[in-house]
Amino acid sequence: MKTVEVPLGDRSYPIYIGQGLLDQGELLQRHVPGKRVLIVTNETVAPLYLERCRAALTSGGSGLQVEAVILPDGEQYKSLDVLQKVWDKALESRLDRNSTFIALGGGVIGDMTGFAAAAYQRGVHFIQVPTTVMAMVDSSVGGKTGVNHPLGKNMIGAFYQPKVVLVDVDTLNSLPDRELASGISEIIKYGLIRDPALFEWLEANMERLLARDAEAMSYAIERSCINKAEVVSADEREGGVRATLNLGHTFGHAMEASQGYGVWLHGEAVAAGTVMAADMSLRLGWIEPSVASRATDLLKRAKLPTEPPKGMTQDDFRSFMAVDKKVLDGDLRLILLRGPLGNCVFTGNYDPAALDATLDNAVLC
Amino acid sequence: MKTVEVPLGDRSYPIYIGQGLLDQGELLQRHVPGKRVLIVTNETVAPLYLERCRAALTSGGSGLQVEAVILPDGEQYKSLDVLQKVWDKALESRLDRNSTFIALGGGVIGDMTGFAAAAYQRGVHFIQVPTTVMAMVDSSVGGKTGVNHPLGKNMIGAFYQPKVVLVDVDTLNSLPDRELASGISEIIKYGLIRDPALFEWLEANMERLLARDAEAMSYAIERSCINKAEVVSADEREGGVRATLNLGHTFGHAMEASQGYGVWLHGEAVAAGTVMAADMSLRLGWIEPSVASRATDLLKRAKLPTEPPKGMTQDDFRSFMAVDKKVLDGDLRLILLRGPLGNCVFTGNYDPAALDATLDNAVLC
Repeated sequence: MKTVEVPLGDRSYPIYIGQGLLDQGELLQRHVPGKRVLIVTNETVAPLYLERCRAALTSGGSGLQVEAVILPDGEQYKSLDVLQKVWDKALESRLDRNSTFIALGGGVIGDMTGFAAAAYQRGVHFIQVPTTVMAMVDSSVGGKTGVNHPLGKNMIGAFYQPKVVLVDVDTLNSLPDRELASGISEIIKYGLIRDPALFEWLEANMERLLARDAEAMSYAIERSCINKAEVVSADEREGGVRATLNLGHTFGHAMEASQGYGVWLHGEAVAAGTVMAADMSLRLGWIEPSVASRATDLLKRAKLPTEPPKGMTQDDFRSFMAVDKKVLDGDLRLILLRGPLGNCVFTGNYDPAALDATLDNAVLC
Repeated sequence: MKTVEVPLGDRSYPIYIGQGLLDQGELLQRHVPGKRVLIVTNETVAPLYLERCRAALTSGGSGLQVEAVILPDGEQYKSLDVLQKVWDKALESRLDRNSTFIALGGGVIGDMTGFAAAAYQRGVHFIQVPTTVMAMVDSSVGGKTGVNHPLGKNMIGAFYQPKVVLVDVDTLNSLPDRELASGISEIIKYGLIRDPALFEWLEANMERLLARDAEAMSYAIERSCINKAEVVSADEREGGVRATLNLGHTFGHAMEASQGYGVWLHGEAVAAGTVMAADMSLRLGWIEPSVASRATDLLKRAKLPTEPPKGMTQDDFRSFMAVDKKVLDGDLRLILLRGPLGNCVFTGNYDPAALDATLDNAVLC
């Protein structure tokens, strides 16, 4: 088992990464301070892992009382309405302020459970047990939680850190191929924004990842978590450098929102958004053509889309991008690549003609 | 103008208390970091103070852009459904992460706006402009925000501090008598739990408060805010002493919840709950009979109820009290008076027979 520490002062926590961790009850139990636990999961994950998670919590005569709530599966259910079912269950079960909510599932379950925990009785304990690559390398690290609003993604939420993240890579064996690729999109992102050695490792090892080789997967996840932990501990509340984790996300969010959440997976939209960010960076003269082409090629090898959905217009992009959380007093700030492979900037200071050209080019594809 | 500082490290903020403050635009403007403001108020307060608040924000060519959302008035609307209107308005107006939400109204508006600000884009700036005694002396100080759930009061929320609290005592001239009394209930509470001199001042000056004498009101509000600020700065997240601010609240919340929110005002329920807490303290032998009788007498002079609503049963109390946020791993902890006037304890260590007797006595009234 590997352990990555996320250093955040009194909110620091470990990420455990390895095979078979879900069967080692003590790993979870040592991070549950009270007696009551609520597992939040979805209809897809529950039949696969809910009983194993429950067994891990109650093993060895722990005496923990475990409740569970099963939500519908998909980004389109990442709403306040569905979130309310978690609070309903918690109150019906009379869970008190010393309870622990456990997110068992992908990024949607993690984000929703985290916000549910942040707001329930103004804050209860929270644990992440991610079962998708996306959740393991991105959403379960760093404490961003929340739900979507019809007018924008992740618009309602909280910064809220878990007590522990338990990554059992064996759970990836049940992951659909599209979900696998979606998560790999975020791993590629870490390479592009700050870790050229990881990017080159991915160029050499993409087929091992796609084949779910446990050793390769553990390495890529550990490396991603280390990157994310470094960024998050430098800037927990996204005043600056943390925003760079959103490479491709502003364009991607617009794609997700304009289609309706759940049509494309998050990482698919991020992949196409990353290609747009690279295109704009190239038009600005901030990167060599080879950086843009290597990014696009690697995303394609991961079987990710590299163009926006058919039929999307410039207006679609502009109206959704105008409500992005990175708009500051009216200016749209973007994460763009700048310099050699592995370097980026977060800036609102760019020639708007480059953005126009990138949008033009993307919607003409 | 008096200023009470709430010392909370990098979340410290001032409370300004005085007459005519709502017309001094600079007081608000200096605490708005961005360009965009959303005033959240209700149907009762909007016709009285919304335009004055808007004028204060835009006076002197401040250039601030001010939006407003007007919610229905009453505790029964302190729900997630109604809260969603605030987020809808913010997103429709494309308010960004550097915006400021201003709560203009009583405790319900303050609690809802605070949670709306805490969760909007994971946190925007927040200002309190309370227009009721309750909000001035209690809910606008200390950062507790949230909404009710059908199964419990304030069950969904956040700890979130404002940038400033602006208390213009002139706004109390429009306050209905019942609301005035409801707020005075919390002032009496500070006397009972930690400030015997304030309690004695109230015994001597209750009629001045009921007549809305501005000098007396400013004094009582300042004293209350100082008390609350001391407690909150010692224990922001309610690990211990802060819980003592909830004297009478566990019984009171059960009364409010069992009737449906909005039938009794919060301070009315707290008043009847305080009498029950004093009764239980007396049965435990923890206070002299004179402390209980002085508390009841002062609450009666403030024209507050001192008995639970007719028809409420022991079961009503027990089922609502079981989901109180002060339940810890199944034990119900209560704030009870103990010792001379002005002293209390927060404990789950009491003879349950005293609680039984207090409930028996209360529902027989």
